[in-house]
Amino acid sequence: MNHSPLAFHCGVTLSPPSPSDKTADADRLAGGLQRQGLEDVTVPLDILRRLPAELRRSGFRLDLVIGLSGEGLRILDVGKTRVFGIALDIGSTNIECLLYDLGTGEKIGEAGVENPQVYFGYDVLTRVQRSMTGEFADLVRSLSEGIRGVIARNCEMHGIASDEIYAVTVAGNTIMSHFFLGLDVDNIPLSPYIPVVNRSFFADAGGTGLPVNSNAVVYVFPNAGSYVGGDVISGILFSGLYREEEPALFIDVGTNVEITLGCRDWIMVGAGAAGPALEGGVANIGKKAEAGTISRVRIDRRSRKIALEVIGGTEPGGICGSGLIDLVSEMYSAGIIDQSGKFNGGRDEVIERDGVKSYLLFRSGDTGLYLNENEIKNFLLSKAAMFSFLYVFVRSVGLSFRDIKKVYVAGALGCGIDPEKAITIGMLPDIPRERFLPLGNSSIGGAGEVLLQRGLLKEVEDIASKITYREMNEDAELMHVLQGAMFIPHTDPEILKG
Amino acid sequence: MNHSPLAFHCGVTLSPPSPSDKTADADRLAGGLQRQGLEDVTVPLDILRRLPAELRRSGFRLDLVIGLSGEGLRILDVGKTRVFGIALDIGSTNIECLLYDLGTGEKIGEAGVENPQVYFGYDVLTRVQRSMTGEFADLVRSLSEGIRGVIARNCEMHGIASDEIYAVTVAGNTIMSHFFLGLDVDNIPLSPYIPVVNRSFFADAGGTGLPVNSNAVVYVFPNAGSYVGGDVISGILFSGLYREEEPALFIDVGTNVEITLGCRDWIMVGAGAAGPALEGGVANIGKKAEAGTISRVRIDRRSRKIALEVIGGTEPGGICGSGLIDLVSEMYSAGIIDQSGKFNGGRDEVIERDGVKSYLLFRSGDTGLYLNENEIKNFLLSKAAMFSFLYVFVRSVGLSFRDIKKVYVAGALGCGIDPEKAITIGMLPDIPRERFLPLGNSSIGGAGEVLLQRGLLKEVEDIASKITYREMNEDAELMHVLQGAMFIPHTDPEILKG
Repeated sequence: MNHSPLAFHCGVTLSPPSPSDKTADADRLAGGLQRQGLEDVTVPLDILRRLPAELRRSGFRLDLVIGLSGEGLRILDVGKTRVFGIALDIGSTNIECLLYDLGTGEKIGEAGVENPQVYFGYDVLTRVQRSMTGEFADLVRSLSEGIRGVIARNCEMHGIASDEIYAVTVAGNTIMSHFFLGLDVDNIPLSPYIPVVNRSFFADAGGTGLPVNSNAVVYVFPNAGSYVGGDVISGILFSGLYREEEPALFIDVGTNVEITLGCRDWIMVGAGAAGPALEGGVANIGKKAEAGTISRVRIDRRSRKIALEVIGGTEPGGICGSGLIDLVSEMYSAGIIDQSGKFNGGRDEVIERDGVKSYLLFRSGDTGLYLNENEIKNFLLSKAAMFSFLYVFVRSVGLSFRDIKKVYVAGALGCGIDPEKAITIGMLPDIPRERFLPLGNSSIGGAGEVLLQRGLLKEVEDIASKITYREMNEDAELMHVLQGAMFIPHTDPEILKG
Repeated sequence: MNHSPLAFHCGVTLSPPSPSDKTADADRLAGGLQRQGLEDVTVPLDILRRLPAELRRSGFRLDLVIGLSGEGLRILDVGKTRVFGIALDIGSTNIECLLYDLGTGEKIGEAGVENPQVYFGYDVLTRVQRSMTGEFADLVRSLSEGIRGVIARNCEMHGIASDEIYAVTVAGNTIMSHFFLGLDVDNIPLSPYIPVVNRSFFADAGGTGLPVNSNAVVYVFPNAGSYVGGDVISGILFSGLYREEEPALFIDVGTNVEITLGCRDWIMVGAGAAGPALEGGVANIGKKAEAGTISRVRIDRRSRKIALEVIGGTEPGGICGSGLIDLVSEMYSAGIIDQSGKFNGGRDEVIERDGVKSYLLFRSGDTGLYLNENEIKNFLLSKAAMFSFLYVFVRSVGLSFRDIKKVYVAGALGCGIDPEKAITIGMLPDIPRERFLPLGNSSIGGAGEVLLQRGLLKEVEDIASKITYREMNEDAELMHVLQGAMFIPHTDPEILKG
């Protein structure tokens, strides 16, 4: 990757003034920058005020931090060489924060936190409604506190001072980007669904309240509409789908399932609510991927003995989204549940708890981890929604799963989906396994790439301008496919091959 | 004059959103501006936050205030139609402030105040020395308070709120521009005399502390070196000298005499200390031009009766610079003083006061206004310095006074120099009177022009880049001419015709 970060150190050696060269300090600096190919670099007043002393202290060998703002290059600091940057993914549920050394391009830290706005409602629309009825400032403050906290913690952990952060890239869905910038969300949920801003936006660090250098560059990804946010665009960037010659699929699984189908010529995005099931949210034992969370499950076909992989190797305290996919898939393969997700009779590990049949996953003393029949049913509803979206979406452009040579799978689903397991339960299409390419958190991945490579800003604009949004929930065929998809893998297995 | 102010109101009518046009607010606005020929107009975050409510309140007929900043056009306010601007001339001695309605181009107010920095020293170099020895912040604060006061007073007098001021242009000498921006002056008085910045500078209104809209555009004129400040460049702009086909002379008389000789192809500037005499500063009775100040003097050749013109028609309390030129010229013509400035014997109106011969100008009861022989001598020294500068300067490029077809005379000399009187005493060259063109305060005039016509910013850059500075005080010929010039009009009258 061509290393050309959004903010960068630049050493400039200038010849000192002399009776035959009375050029003023700022003009001298501009000349030096021009000789290095940096034209029209703006100097803010606070930097200008520090310039003469820095020039003479350094013997006219100046260390600058320069950044790209919306209006061109700008000097962000003087007398500094350490330049760090933050990539933010503001999800409805979680905020992720990567810390980069922009000098080396190295990722040196990552931190995440639950979006404090969940206290106003897990569902984003609930938050928008509360915002519309007088709690806008509280919601903005709440998100801001979460973001400030996670950045400060990430910096502290790695010994980085907040004023050493000179660039921030922000990817989030349209609502989250609006809350982040303190923008009105009132017109987003009501027809004709109008955001305040879709184009990319460079904000003054001061106005955003971020704990970073006050001159820092803050770049917010563009949205492609109320339902296709900067997180999707950032993810598409990260996947590389926009450079493909043949149509590729990019699936981002979270609270919503976002599906992108396209190539270098066109990009179509659809989104639908799959429910929190796929994130582990419906299960009592559902947890985000962190130490003590089950990430992988194997059940022996004959002994039905269960083998768990736990993050950090400790005793498990819950299961993440990808673990849940493994678990349901293995329970089905081992004959513990049937096609409809109901428990088959005569299994020792299935017990009745509070009147509901439950599967014992792990026991520790008197307590244990259980998955019950209702939770499995909710999970299957989510996987059905997701598969149906995929199916209808691909067919709507006259393609079938067979035609898709690359399927990028991203999302905050713990440790990444095991395609084999997801295909077993009919969540992903039954196509050759090598076509599935895991991406992890693609949204923050794209934010990190732009941070390290400012040339990608153009690609981002290009992606945003190519996107067509396709409404998913109103589709008649969808309901039809959905019915069968609530079974494992589907009532019509042929449909899985598309 | 083509009216295209630095900040301007712009009405934009947009089609409201509809199910077939889901363009976001900011993007919709950008489209509307583009249709009006305004491309790439930056929207600051605080404006973006107010945009959705303003759009809907106004029924998508938006009133904007747009300004030109260093990096291009920028939205400064929304929902406003009144747009005002301030032109500032920051002189070492006085601060002048013009208030313009940028909608009509009309000048609606003017106010002036003594530069509070004079309490640190009348002489600018004294202030720079005090700044270098720890009083920098005090000097900056002092100037800032003076400027804030004069702007606030000007606005108050005309019922303009401070946040209705969206553009400010600032012309001052290099030192004053530096103090205004809070820039170090330490390197200006020491060889090789290096300012922090010479190029023109757009500052954030917030950083300057001005009592204007926080998004206002603040433009500071470029300097052409330590000794040729933005005030001179602004004055050259105002005079139009830079458009002349044949060499013209532009004389700005203040504490310093600044001389510009040039045309559209080249511009040469020289400056020298003439002393405060020409501003009325050496005389006890010297005052700035305001109500109660003598602006014109006539002395009857036979009766020697004195006739005074007083600003405001009241009893006089002092005399301004142009009045002093009149007075000395008339005293000479009436035979009250001789060529060397000494009183001729036997005049009733000349009396001995504190051991010095003094001329009674005006009596009121027990007190009176007197000009004494020492003051006349100091005045003649100043006029001699000024004439000598002119003579040497014009000759240095191989020209003589005869060759100059236009002589612009500017300066804070009260009511403008009467060329006839100035020629009589040998302060201005003896050339046809119609070649003298009075300009008044040309520095603030140029600042006002840029405020009303942003296209002139290019001309300003052009002027700054063409200027060559010529050191005056080190000239051998100067000393030679100066000796004779201390007499009225000169020991060698031929030299006055150049």
